Amino acid sequence: MKVLVLPGDGIGPEIVAQAKKVLNALQKDGLDIELSEAPLGGAAYDAYGAPYPEFTQKLAREADAILLGAVGGPQYDQLDRPLRPERGLLGIRKDLNLFANLRPAILYPELANASTLKPEVVSGLDILIVRELTGDIYFGQPRGIRVNEAGEREGFNTMLYSESEVRRIAHVAFRAAQKRGKKLCSVDKANVLETTEFWKEIMTDVAKEYPDVELSHMYVDNAAMQLVRAPKQFDVMVTGNIFGDILSDQASMLTGSIGMLPSASLDQNGKGLYEPSHGSAPDIAGKDIANPLATILSAAMMLRYSLNNEAAAVRVENAVKAVLAQGLRTADIYEAGTTKVSCSQMGDAVVAAL
Amino acid sequence: MKVLVLPGDGIGPEIVAQAKKVLNALQKDGLDIELSEAPLGGAAYDAYGAPYPEFTQKLAREADAILLGAVGGPQYDQLDRPLRPERGLLGIRKDLNLFANLRPAILYPELANASTLKPEVVSGLDILIVRELTGDIYFGQPRGIRVNEAGEREGFNTMLYSESEVRRIAHVAFRAAQKRGKKLCSVDKANVLETTEFWKEIMTDVAKEYPDVELSHMYVDNAAMQLVRAPKQFDVMVTGNIFGDILSDQASMLTGSIGMLPSASLDQNGKGLYEPSHGSAPDIAGKDIANPLATILSAAMMLRYSLNNEAAAVRVENAVKAVLAQGLRTADIYEAGTTKVSCSQMGDAVVAAL
Ligand SMILES: CC(C)[C@H](C(=O)O)[C@@H](O)C(=O)O
Ligand SMILES: CC(C)[C@H](C(=O)O)[C@@H](O)C(=O)O
Repeated sequence: MKVLVLPGDGIGPEIVAQAKKVLNALQKDGLDIELSEAPLGGAAYDAYGAPYPEFTQKLAREADAILLGAVGGPQYDQLDRPLRPERGLLGIRKDLNLFANLRPAILYPELANASTLKPEVVSGLDILIVRELTGDIYFGQPRGIRVNEAGEREGFNTMLYSESEVRRIAHVAFRAAQKRGKKLCSVDKANVLETTEFWKEIMTDVAKEYPDVELSHMYVDNAAMQLVRAPKQFDVMVTGNIFGDILSDQASMLTGSIGMLPSASLDQNGKGLYEPSHGSAPDIAGKDIANPLATILSAAMMLRYSLNNEAAAVRVENAVKAVLAQGLRTADIYEAGTTKVSCSQMGDAVVAAL
Repeated sequence: MKVLVLPGDGIGPEIVAQAKKVLNALQKDGLDIELSEAPLGGAAYDAYGAPYPEFTQKLAREADAILLGAVGGPQYDQLDRPLRPERGLLGIRKDLNLFANLRPAILYPELANASTLKPEVVSGLDILIVRELTGDIYFGQPRGIRVNEAGEREGFNTMLYSESEVRRIAHVAFRAAQKRGKKLCSVDKANVLETTEFWKEIMTDVAKEYPDVELSHMYVDNAAMQLVRAPKQFDVMVTGNIFGDILSDQASMLTGSIGMLPSASLDQNGKGLYEPSHGSAPDIAGKDIANPLATILSAAMMLRYSLNNEAAAVRVENAVKAVLAQGLRTADIYEAGTTKVSCSQMGDAVVAAL
C-alpha cells in the first residue's frame, strides 16, 4: 500500500514527523506500506509556485492513502486567491473526490477538565460528524464579484447539491450510524433553503434502506444551539459542506482539546486523506511544542479506513490512551499534576507505548 | 406613536399578553402609544389563508414599531412553502426593509447557573450580534429545485450581497460598537466564498469612518469555536444573514437562558420589529408556563430604538432585574431556592415592579 505524506505548513512538519515515527515503528513490526512525501499548501507554493502542484497531484493520485499535517500561514495571505494554501486543500479534496469528511468529537476522560463546558454536559461525549466535502457553496458555479444591472458591485456564490451527491453522503452517514449508536441527525435549513429542502427529501428516501437507523432532522441554527445545550443527544450528524465546516469546528471545541481530534476525508472506494482537525498554528510553528496526537490518531484512522488494518489502528489508539494515562501532556492540554512534554517527546512516548 | 402587536403562534399570544400588560401600565403613566393587533404566521394563515396577509401588511406599514411573539407550529408543516408561518416572518422583514437584526447575548448574574458553560467562561457575558436580515442566501435569486443538464435533480440557492447592503449593515454595527466596548468582529468565510471576501473588503473600507472602533475579521468556523472557547473576547459581532442565524442562536444558548433574550430588527429610519430570540414552543403553548421576559425585554428595546423613550426602556429593564432579584422564575429558568411562577404571574410581577 502506498502512503503519501504531506507535511504542509506551520506546525505541519513537526506533527507529521511524530506520526511517521509511529508508522515506521509499525513497519518494523511488519506493516507493509511504502511512504513517499510531497508538499501541499504554502510549502508547495514555495517549491513549485502552486498550492497543489503536478508533482503532488501525481503522487496523490497514485497513493492508497494520504496523511496531511495542516496548511496555511500569514506569509501567504497576500497571494492571489488561486495560489493560497487553502486552495491546495480544496484542490486535492476535489481532485481525488474525497466527498466524505468524518470528524469525530470525542472527550477523553483524562482531559475532561479542558472543556469549557460543565463536566456533566460533556463527560463521555462521542459524536461523529459526517460532512459532505466536495459540493455545496464551496464549489458551486456561478460565483464571483461582479457589477450588477443597477451598476452596483456585488459578491455572489451558488449553493448546489445534486441528487447523487446527497445520496452517496447519506449512505456513508447511515452506514457509520449502523456501526455506532444507530441514530442519525441530518442538519439542514429546509425552512429557508431549497437546496437543503432537497437534501432533507433525499435523506428521508435513503433512510428506507436503513430501517435499523433512527433518522431525525434539525435546522442548522437549532443544531448550533443543541450542541451547546445538550451535545450528548447526538450520535452521528450529517450535513453539507458549509454547515459541516461550522458545526464540526464547534463540536470539536466542546471537548476543549482539539489537539486530540483526527479527521478522515474519503472517496467512494475507501481511499482517503487524513489530517488533524486543528489548523497549522503558525504562531507556535518550529517550537516543538505542538500536540502531535491528533495527527497520530489520524494515522490510526488511515490504518482503519484505507489500509484495512483494524488491529494496527487499535494498537495506535491504545498507545495514545496509554500516554495520556501516564500523565504526559503537550502544552495545549497541560494542567497541574501532569507532565509537560514537547511534540517530539510525545511522539517518542507513543512509539514506546505501541 | 403606533405600535402593532403580532401575537403569532404557539406561546406567542401568552407571552405577548404579558408585554401588553407592561405597555398598558406605561400608558397609564403617560406613555403616548396607540396599540393595534394583527395575526402573523400560522394564525394569519388560519384567519386569512396567508402567513403575512394584506390586513397585517397594511397595519405593519403604518406602524412605528411592531412587537411580535413567535411564529410556527407542527400543524403548518405540511403546507406549501409560500403558506408556511416562517414565510410570514421572512415576508414582513423584507417588506419593511428590516435589514438590521440586533441580538444581544447577555448572561444575567442571577441566572449564571443556567449556562452549560463553566461560570468563569461566561460570567459577565455581554455580546451583541448584528445580523444582516434581508439579503444573503435567504433571498438571493435564482433558487429552487431543477433537473440539470445531465438529467439529474438538484437543489440550488444564491448567496448574494451588494455593496450598499453591506455598507448599511456595517454602519449599524460600527455605531453599535461605538456605544459599547468599541470592538467589532466581522465574521466571514473569505477564504472560500467570494460573497464574504467582498463583505470583508467593504467592512474594511467602512472602518475608516470609525477610527475609534477596532475592527477584526474572523472565519465563521473559527467564530463558532471561539464562542465555545472564550466567548467573552467578543463585544459586537457583525455577519450575514445565514451565518448570523447560526451564530446568534449559538451565542444565545451560551447564556443557558434563551427565554431572557430579546431581539430587534430595524430599518434605515429606526422603525423596527421586536421579538424574543426563542421560538414558538408549541409543546408548552396554552399552559401558561412560558417565560415572558424576553418579550417584555423586546418591548423595552422597542421603547429605546423605535419610540426614543430611553427612560421607559430602562424602567422596564429594571423591573425585570427586580423580579429576578426577588427570586421569581418561570419553569425554564427555575432552580432550587427560587420561586416558580407562571407566565402570567411573571407578567404581573414585572408590572408591579415597574
Ligand atoms: C481551510 C478551509 C478552506 C477549510 C474549509 O473550510 O473546508 C477548513 O476550515 C476545514 O474545515 O478543513
Ligand atoms: C424561522 C426562520 C425562518 C428564522 C430565520 O432563519 O431567520 C429564525 O430561525 C430566526 O432566526 O429568526
